[in-house]
Amino acid sequence: MLDNPLITLTTDFGYEDPFVGIMKGVILTINPEARIIDLTHGISPHDIREAGLSIALSYDFFPKDSIHVVVTDPGVGSARRPLIVMADYHYFVGPDNGVFSNIFARKHENLKVVEITAKHYFLSEDSPTFQGRDIFAPAAAWLSRRISMANFGSFITDYHSIPVPVPSMINENALRGEVVHIDRFGNAMTNISKAEIHKLLMLQPGTPPAVICKGREAPLKNYYSEAADAALYSVVNSSGYLELFRYRGSAAREYSISAGESVDIILPRKGS
Amino acid sequence: MLDNPLITLTTDFGYEDPFVGIMKGVILTINPEARIIDLTHGISPHDIREAGLSIALSYDFFPKDSIHVVVTDPGVGSARRPLIVMADYHYFVGPDNGVFSNIFARKHENLKVVEITAKHYFLSEDSPTFQGRDIFAPAAAWLSRRISMANFGSFITDYHSIPVPVPSMINENALRGEVVHIDRFGNAMTNISKAEIHKLLMLQPGTPPAVICKGREAPLKNYYSEAADAALYSVVNSSGYLELFRYRGSAAREYSISAGESVDIILPRKGS
Amino acid sequence: MLDNPLITLTTDFGYEDPFVGIMKGVILTINPEARIIDLTHGISPHDIREAGLSIALSYDFFPKDSIHVVVTDPGVGSARRPLIVMADYHYFVGPDNGVFSNIFARKHENLKVVEITAKHYFLSEDSPTFQGRDIFAPAAAWLSRRISMANFGSFITDYHSIPVPVPSMINENALRGEVVHIDRFGNAMTNISKAEIHKLLMLQPGTPPAVICKGREAPLKNYYSEAADAALYSVVNSSGYLELFRYRGSAAREYSISAGESVDIILPRKGS
Repeated sequence: MLDNPLITLTTDFGYEDPFVGIMKGVILTINPEARIIDLTHGISPHDIREAGLSIALSYDFFPKDSIHVVVTDPGVGSARRPLIVMADYHYFVGPDNGVFSNIFARKHENLKVVEITAKHYFLSEDSPTFQGRDIFAPAAAWLSRRISMANFGSFITDYHSIPVPVPSMINENALRGEVVHIDRFGNAMTNISKAEIHKLLMLQPGTPPAVICKGREAPLKNYYSEAADAALYSVVNSSGYLELFRYRGSAAREYSISAGESVDIILPRKGS
Repeated sequence: MLDNPLITLTTDFGYEDPFVGIMKGVILTINPEARIIDLTHGISPHDIREAGLSIALSYDFFPKDSIHVVVTDPGVGSARRPLIVMADYHYFVGPDNGVFSNIFARKHENLKVVEITAKHYFLSEDSPTFQGRDIFAPAAAWLSRRISMANFGSFITDYHSIPVPVPSMINENALRGEVVHIDRFGNAMTNISKAEIHKLLMLQPGTPPAVICKGREAPLKNYYSEAADAALYSVVNSSGYLELFRYRGSAAREYSISAGESVDIILPRKGS
Repeated sequence: MLDNPLITLTTDFGYEDPFVGIMKGVILTINPEARIIDLTHGISPHDIREAGLSIALSYDFFPKDSIHVVVTDPGVGSARRPLIVMADYHYFVGPDNGVFSNIFARKHENLKVVEITAKHYFLSEDSPTFQGRDIFAPAAAWLSRRISMANFGSFITDYHSIPVPVPSMINENALRGEVVHIDRFGNAMTNISKAEIHKLLMLQPGTPPAVICKGREAPLKNYYSEAADAALYSVVNSSGYLELFRYRGSAAREYSISAGESVDIILPRKGS
């Protein structure tokens, strides 16, 4: 454990209500030494996929042993279980509703999952509508005080995963992925990784591929300002995924691109 | 006083401007040891009631001796007095414009209120437009350095309160309250407390009450996902108040509910 | 250097994505002792002027030796240089795209500017799309660990400035400035300083000047609530600049005022 343990918060609670502040009060009451960092509270309401993607892309930039609380939880109060996940030397605390699917989908040497059942670590026994305050914040705070994972409940392996969309070859020369996130700038991030692009390019080394979205070609650039005109372009973004963008504009708005939109990378047919 | 004193901030300053950051700079210049927590800065501009409700529902989740700065202050610069309030072993710093009415309305053993007049604790003598920076942030920072309340000015009892709406019986079987807050999810919180619901139910034990808003019945559930269809429901929320909701949707938007809307809890007439 | 070094963050990254949280993770991995304060992340996307104004109006409220990271960077990945600026006993870290123009425009005894080239302080060698994470956050974190500015690269004097609009006399009795920022409340801040207003008033001492915007007079008040009716008024704001406002309303929205709008201060002609 760190001397000054780090707890990050990722929620769909927004910034207008005191929900997040209350969770911080609960954490600091239990562990005054905890340092709390907001990852984002702007997850679209109830969007489990978006929350799961945000934490999966971010946790690795924090020190090992950081504790990441993720709460996007439309099923709060139901039988849905509260979890502590250990993966990649990081801890994750949140509901068993699939929000950790991106993390489960990776190969981890030491993945461990505990169902939180030890009610003496809860703020209140009964929490029908705000487990972020009553279960997840206290669990993270006690965890940051070096309470071992095993003390919170039993290890489980039947945790819930939701399918994480993966790209696939649609013919021998073309890979199809999809848009998984629109960021503040209107950039449309896909699920096609740098590694997958490289693998495709190995099929015909030296051949420039075409990136296609909504029937439009989005030429691949190295960085945003390389594409100075107001058209659709693509780039491998800072998370290592193919992203559609428009320089100083919103690709999502200009071309009506939203999450789920197909994106193809196509190699020209040999000899054509 | 705490070793690492906690100062929370609640304002209507929003997130686009540097106002809140500047207040933090002022606090940390005076007390580098202070830990500052944002409760929310998304209070609707000039909405004293909303700010007052936010802090009243939240402060108790922070450690005793926390200092809560609340600034929603359309009268800034006028004769309106700056205050330090001590209640329930917490400190509150803000304008005497009614923002602490919800706190004053509770019974407190040790309520104390000081008018801040000691100008040597101000950042600048004259602060016509930004007392959050010039008076409230410095007062909170000095308070966190164990300067006693009494040093900031004289104790007063004629502080300003605005009426806090309370539910009332509209006939022998029905209680009428009102919506006091719409949260990010479109949930509509009322001023009808769990205790008041219980009191009403004691009139006819075992009788299920009807919750009515805008002529529509909103059946009472235990948690959100118990109400899986897209209709209006109600729940006792995490603050202990009756709340109207729509599962995975916005009750406020779907049914045009806003603050001030009447909400009734009705017991069926005996024998009917 | 401070014991607990302070790093402020000002970006156009918004609050919906994990970009800012990731930068904090990077900083705390390098320097667990750093205290990080958000100035604002609500800068309009790609608006270099707005970011530059925000930091210029704010840094002085933080302790000396604070480190201010400012990232609004449409040219990220291009040849545009990363900088560390020392001015007024504060450090500033960001791109050489004019975002520090307001700071360069002031007279500083000890202005020093370094082009960051020491790649061993970068998170990754190649950062085509997110230098906030890969260069600016790490540079700020290492700087907060007392690495001297000179270790990051060579001192330069040919840093980039963009013209900062300044007011000018349009005739012997009138000064013309412009709106430079609209805040959350719809207040329209101009670039006309208190000092410039005083200088103008010295031309005809005792004569009340007229403030004019969009053909409408905006009488000068001392504080907001002095102007209780719903009309356009002006005030010298908390940053020391003339500002147009509407009491409890949005001057910007009501009168369609946006950045760049002309504002005149006019002295009545002698004898008229």
